[in-house]
This record gives sequence, C-alpha cells and structure tokens, in this order.
Amino acid sequence: MALDLLHVRPGLELPRRTVHVDWERLVAYAEASGDHNPIHQDEEFAHSVGLPDVIAHGMWTMGAAVVLVADWAGDPTAVVSYGTRFVNPVVVPATGGADVEVSGVVTKVDEETGRVTVELSVTCDGTKVLGRAVAVVQAPVPVP
Amino acid sequence: MALDLLHVRPGLELPRRTVHVDWERLVAYAEASGDHNPIHQDEEFAHSVGLPDVIAHGMWTMGAAVVLVADWAGDPTAVVSYGTRFVNPVVVPATGGADVEVSGVVTKVDEETGRVTVELSVTCDGTKVLGRAVAVVQAPVPVP
Repeated sequence: MALDLLHVRPGLELPRRTVHVDWERLVAYAEASGDHNPIHQDEEFAHSVGLPDVIAHGMWTMGAAVVLVADWAGDPTAVVSYGTRFVNPVVVPATGGADVEVSGVVTKVDEETGRVTVELSVTCDGTKVLGRAVAVVQAPVPVP
Repeated sequence: MALDLLHVRPGLELPRRTVHVDWERLVAYAEASGDHNPIHQDEEFAHSVGLPDVIAHGMWTMGAAVVLVADWAGDPTAVVSYGTRFVNPVVVPATGGADVEVSGVVTKVDEETGRVTVELSVTCDGTKVLGRAVAVVQAPVPVP
C-alpha cells in the first residue's frame, strides 16, 4: 500500500525493528556486493588492524536500516535519496552474531512535492553506528 | 596501502570499473540484506508494476559503486560518509544480466582534516542510475 500523505506528520515514528547479522550473512553479502575485504570475513585480519572482531560492511548496515523506510513506504522505489555517516562499525562476534536496532522518525513533510524526510537511528549494543542517516521518500501527492 | 594526501588533488580520476549484476546476484543480495521485495526477484511482479524487468536493489547499486572508493582508499573504514539520489533503476534482464559502469573523481581535498570528497558517476546502458553520489574518505593527515 502506498504512503498516504494525509496521515504523515513530523514526529511520526516508524515501526522499529531489530536486524540480526552473523558471519554467514556477511559472507553472503560479500558475494552479492563484490566487497571481499578481509576485515569483514577474517577474524585474524580484523584483530591485526586493531578490531575486536570482524565488522559488518558499512553498506550492509546502511542497506539493512533503510528497509524499514521502504517497507513503511510500501514501495522500495519510493526512496528517492539516502545518505549517512559511518560513525562506528557493527562488530560481529563469531558466536551469536550481532543485533542492529533500527528506528525512524518523520522529520519533514513537503505537502506540495510529496517528499517525506525520515531520520533513522541505528545502534548496536547501545552504540550509534550510523549518524545523520536520512532517507527521503516520494509519496503520492493528494489531488486537491 | 593508505591514501597519500600528498598525491590527491581535485580532478583526480579514480580507476573506473564495470560491475556485472544478474538474477543470481540479486537473490544473494536479497538473502544478505533481508530485502525480499518481489520487484527485485519476480519478473511477473515487475511487469505488473510497469517495469520492463526486475530491477536491482538501489542499495545493491549504491554498495557496488562505493567499493571503487573503498578500494582506492585502501581501507573500507576510511569511507566516513556516503549519500546519493536514486534517479533510475538498474534493469536486470533474465538473460545476460546488466553491467553497471562506475567512475569517480576527487572534487575536494581538505588538507587540514584529511577529508577527501569523491563524486561517483554510475550508469547502466548509458543511463544515469545514481545522482549526486558523493563519498567522503578520511585520509591520514601528513605530519607538517
């Protein structure tokens, strides 16, 4: 179902979710994305560069977070822009993996253009992993 | 090898590359990202919403493009921010898949902070797929 602009106001909170990531998922992401940097797959390499364990691809985290917005909008092609800062890595232990917490809030609604701005909050173990994660969604403009 | 700020100037072009994407890759990406929208996997569904064929996940395209910058920087964690507009989808035919062309140029170098701004150009079959795709990389700051 497409986004109904009549019911979208700044301050509206999107349904939050938790996304699980483990080594298997990182290997699958490396294959799909073509990003085979060992920092995401090789524990010893990760240790050698001072990390506590392998870390998720920043683009995996960014992608996992924006699914919240695409699902809420009801159409992945409604997301017209997206940007973020990578402030902390998602560290993925060999056993148990990691949980990424994603929430979002509408910060701006442009009723003329139908553009809705959503700011995402993305944390792992209480630590912010993405900063200023902002997605803009194109909603259908109501006929006046 | 880390980026050497002494050799980075606005106008510098990064080595361009072509990234291939096919249905198998989209299925792998759906698994890894958790984005199972049928628009990326189901030809009939894609046709039903007016698309010529299934389309790549926007985040797949965004991720595939930034690997150019991460590889150039020599360290994926050097990419400190990234954002883009999704201007056209990458249409992926069942036979043969699609080729995404990625190039990049340095547009700004801040010698004090070591921040290097790269603007990416991302096209498929001559059509721009990402707009204003900008990544910022943190280079080591040379000791004066």
